[in-house]
Amino acid sequence: MDFWFTMGSTYTYLTVSRIENVARAAGVSVRMRIFKNVLALTGAVQLPFLPDTPKMTYMRRDIERRAQKLGLAASFPFPYPAPNPQRANRVATIGMREGWGPAYVRAAYRHWFEHGIGSGGDENLRLALTDCQQGHDIARILALAESNEIVDEINCATEEARGLGLFGSPSFVVNKEVFWGDDHLEDAIHWAKHGRL
Amino acid sequence: MDFWFTMGSTYTYLTVSRIENVARAAGVSVRMRIFKNVLALTGAVQLPFLPDTPKMTYMRRDIERRAQKLGLAASFPFPYPAPNPQRANRVATIGMREGWGPAYVRAAYRHWFEHGIGSGGDENLRLALTDCQQGHDIARILALAESNEIVDEINCATEEARGLGLFGSPSFVVNKEVFWGDDHLEDAIHWAKHGRL
Repeated sequence: MDFWFTMGSTYTYLTVSRIENVARAAGVSVRMRIFKNVLALTGAVQLPFLPDTPKMTYMRRDIERRAQKLGLAASFPFPYPAPNPQRANRVATIGMREGWGPAYVRAAYRHWFEHGIGSGGDENLRLALTDCQQGHDIARILALAESNEIVDEINCATEEARGLGLFGSPSFVVNKEVFWGDDHLEDAIHWAKHGRL
Repeated sequence: MDFWFTMGSTYTYLTVSRIENVARAAGVSVRMRIFKNVLALTGAVQLPFLPDTPKMTYMRRDIERRAQKLGLAASFPFPYPAPNPQRANRVATIGMREGWGPAYVRAAYRHWFEHGIGSGGDENLRLALTDCQQGHDIARILALAESNEIVDEINCATEEARGLGLFGSPSFVVNKEVFWGDDHLEDAIHWAKHGRL
């Protein structure tokens, strides 16, 4: 199963916090895939959540309720938007190549939602990279994160996501069957095992 | 628990088909409440689902998968948008006053999704009103459905929905706690019983 996400997404915090355990318990293997952002998928000009809208208010409360249910140590309200999700995506893409990607993504979300330090900002990068591997050469990673090579890799992945029909984060893809939203993770896992809901 | 909806909503088909049984099994009472449409709640200028968008494609497939899981006799693809959801809302509002509202709503959705006859059109109205009560004076109902009294009632309910922070259909409200989407019906029921997820 492919787990597609982008580091600016708030609901993805819930998924990142639980997908490893859920998938392991079900015996389903998960590949983490990163896309640039929702606007790059849909061509929309507006972000999914805008200030002072009922949907934004609901998103914040919905995540709070579900984080409490999951027993996560999140503190509310969390900062939104994060300072530099695109840089966080680029760093995560390097991490996926080098093996520390999943741990970095988990750490970046933890610092965002548990300590109020948003993804992609200098402090989040330093803390999350230190958490996921002692002795990381952070200067090397941040330099590589600005390279065309990494930008191109994310753009290619984003085109792939668009081709799959994705339009939001998190999404799960099993044999081209798309499931959108953290609350559909169990459905996606079930589909991976049984080919139906 | 209040179940808020609007008759143009596609996902509401799933809820209408199952909420009675789910709520009865849980011992939770449900009041059906109707609002005008999503745009009246949010002030948005675009419908939630636009032709040739990934979200539209997903919505159709998502409803199909979930209808199959629920064992509903829906046939796909279903027509969308329905011909006259506003008229269906007005008729349903009369029905809620007179006691045949829930049966009308179920019948209207059944004809839309099982027989491809969209809500609010002449044929759907005739079939659904006949289904829910033999001997209905359809001409009386259709005339009343054009009255200021009914239009005002829906407008007032829509203002109430907006005040609650609603932005989509179906929504469930328990002590001002809002749950959006058919896939959150169980959460809403759980909240009604336990005050938490």
